[in-house]
Amino acid sequence: MTGSPLVGPVLVVGSGLLGTSIGLALRRAGVEVLLVDLNPENVTIASGLGAGTAWIEGVEPQLVVVAVPPDHLADEITKALGHRGAVVTDVGSVKSEPLRLVAQHTTGADLARYVGSHPMAGSERSGPFAASAAMFDGRPWAVAPHAGSDPSAIALVTELTRLCGATAITFTPDEHDQAVAATSHLPHLLAALVAGRLTDAPASHMSLSGQGVRDVTRIAAGDPGLWLQIVTANATALTRLLGDVRDDLDRLLDAVRQGERASIVALLERGVAGTAAIPGKHGGPAQEFGLLFVAVPDHPGELARLFADARDIGVNIEDLRIDHDPGRPVGLVELTVAKDRVDSLKESLEVRAWTCHR
Amino acid sequence: MTGSPLVGPVLVVGSGLLGTSIGLALRRAGVEVLLVDLNPENVTIASGLGAGTAWIEGVEPQLVVVAVPPDHLADEITKALGHRGAVVTDVGSVKSEPLRLVAQHTTGADLARYVGSHPMAGSERSGPFAASAAMFDGRPWAVAPHAGSDPSAIALVTELTRLCGATAITFTPDEHDQAVAATSHLPHLLAALVAGRLTDAPASHMSLSGQGVRDVTRIAAGDPGLWLQIVTANATALTRLLGDVRDDLDRLLDAVRQGERASIVALLERGVAGTAAIPGKHGGPAQEFGLLFVAVPDHPGELARLFADARDIGVNIEDLRIDHDPGRPVGLVELTVAKDRVDSLKESLEVRAWTCHR
Repeated sequence: MTGSPLVGPVLVVGSGLLGTSIGLALRRAGVEVLLVDLNPENVTIASGLGAGTAWIEGVEPQLVVVAVPPDHLADEITKALGHRGAVVTDVGSVKSEPLRLVAQHTTGADLARYVGSHPMAGSERSGPFAASAAMFDGRPWAVAPHAGSDPSAIALVTELTRLCGATAITFTPDEHDQAVAATSHLPHLLAALVAGRLTDAPASHMSLSGQGVRDVTRIAAGDPGLWLQIVTANATALTRLLGDVRDDLDRLLDAVRQGERASIVALLERGVAGTAAIPGKHGGPAQEFGLLFVAVPDHPGELARLFADARDIGVNIEDLRIDHDPGRPVGLVELTVAKDRVDSLKESLEVRAWTCHR
Repeated sequence: MTGSPLVGPVLVVGSGLLGTSIGLALRRAGVEVLLVDLNPENVTIASGLGAGTAWIEGVEPQLVVVAVPPDHLADEITKALGHRGAVVTDVGSVKSEPLRLVAQHTTGADLARYVGSHPMAGSERSGPFAASAAMFDGRPWAVAPHAGSDPSAIALVTELTRLCGATAITFTPDEHDQAVAATSHLPHLLAALVAGRLTDAPASHMSLSGQGVRDVTRIAAGDPGLWLQIVTANATALTRLLGDVRDDLDRLLDAVRQGERASIVALLERGVAGTAAIPGKHGGPAQEFGLLFVAVPDHPGELARLFADARDIGVNIEDLRIDHDPGRPVGLVELTVAKDRVDSLKESLEVRAWTCHR
């Protein structure tokens, strides 16, 4: 597609993690950025970081990017559409409910200038200090026009994602919300349920925790205040999906109680199929990878030595996980490499006195 | 405790991943190991790897280690107790149900020689070729005597765990099964439910998958045949726990449908508390760690260069995760380091031309 020229100024509403990162990314691309936030201190920090300059009343933007918490999206989008010459987008995690609320207060011609979007990027930290111009590089960025969105507005928002280094993927608002319900919100809620059950367990039981439960529950450590807003805003898609999972769980509970092996194995096999549905590394098709485990002493420089050896051996490390051994200061490092290189890497590392197992 | 001398021979029943690894670890410690398996080829492979020698009828062991799939545990433990001078243990994932079945066919004096156990170790591969003498080094190994277990038998099994390099943790069989239900089996089943729901999603939706859903669902890729046996054997503990989760899910579903924000946030906060209950690195108390993200080109040697730089800067990498960017050949590497070193590491890496963000 031919990009619609995004020349600016771009008004970014909200100078938190995402707003400031968008400002930094646009400034990197040479676009003028204006910043506004309920908290003037955030604007001072963001502009100090180079994300733009404080907005001055009367300066009219070409594009407004609303980057506020989910609860405030509809109000701020509605307000932003008051800039009559501007296209408006937002970067909230949910698209349908804010659109529905905005449409209650906005006429069709104004609403045509709104195109919701959602960059798939973030950090476990929040606020402008955690921002980065590189945050969106190579990430997917969902663009979710509604039925009445103006094509030129869609093109301008798509150009925003490109200037920020991201890859635009187009959805309807409902499709987007169903997609993130399945790939983000449901995993978060079920991780919270699994983790919540651990609060009942005695500490001695927790000593049997392995990497599996750590992985399943990791995201449940996220900010409850933010996730409450996301879950509430996506209640429609989530209610349907949670109902499906509740039905699955009822069937599973019956099957476990009655020892119905065929039902249990069907559910487990469906899980295996689901993991295969997640796109592989770099979004490409799943490749054939193999694992090698290496014991690494917990001293500075030991990982560096391991990687230098792997480089000298000429094997590209595709992925790495450090599996902590409770009870002693050694990490077990799980290396993912091309399947046909596992054996030769193991032999070559053993020659260099590393303890490995497949 | 004073170790009971484990002099051997040790008869290992089943030359799969765990049996062969135990043979290798005991041979490393100088203990004589005898191997038996329904499939003689496995014994040939295991003995070829140095895990022991094929058992000859009539040679009486000091200790029998039953390392067979869960469905066959009770039969093989019962059979092993026929070695009247031997202590018997097993390494199955579930402890109460096999004990109950064994006790149906075994008198008190013989049953006293049985002490179940469960090493918290494994691999995503199976079979003797995946075995390693180092598999149990530093890992927890649950020892689960029953009320009638002989103290000398408990001591001998504890000595086995020590010789294999593991750390023994004692539980009753019921306690053990409750612990692994919460920390392993429930996470596995719910990961399978989340992953299973992805099989309904169009491929375009899956393009929004991030690291979160990958982490939550990773273990759901495990072998359905093995997990069926584990789930079935631990049905009692799992039925109770799955019922609790079903009740949690019912409450959550109602709360999302009705927009009851207090109930949703309570569940999310309980999840946060649960993640904090998982022991920290090396089983110690949770330490204060911080995260730094670094963009790393996907070429051999780039990770080596990053680690060499981190070593030169003098910062110990506590943990590492590679977050794959769909759409371009760059990995975003998440480094975990001591919280008070994040800023200085970021500055020093940027001086060395790495692109970082917090």
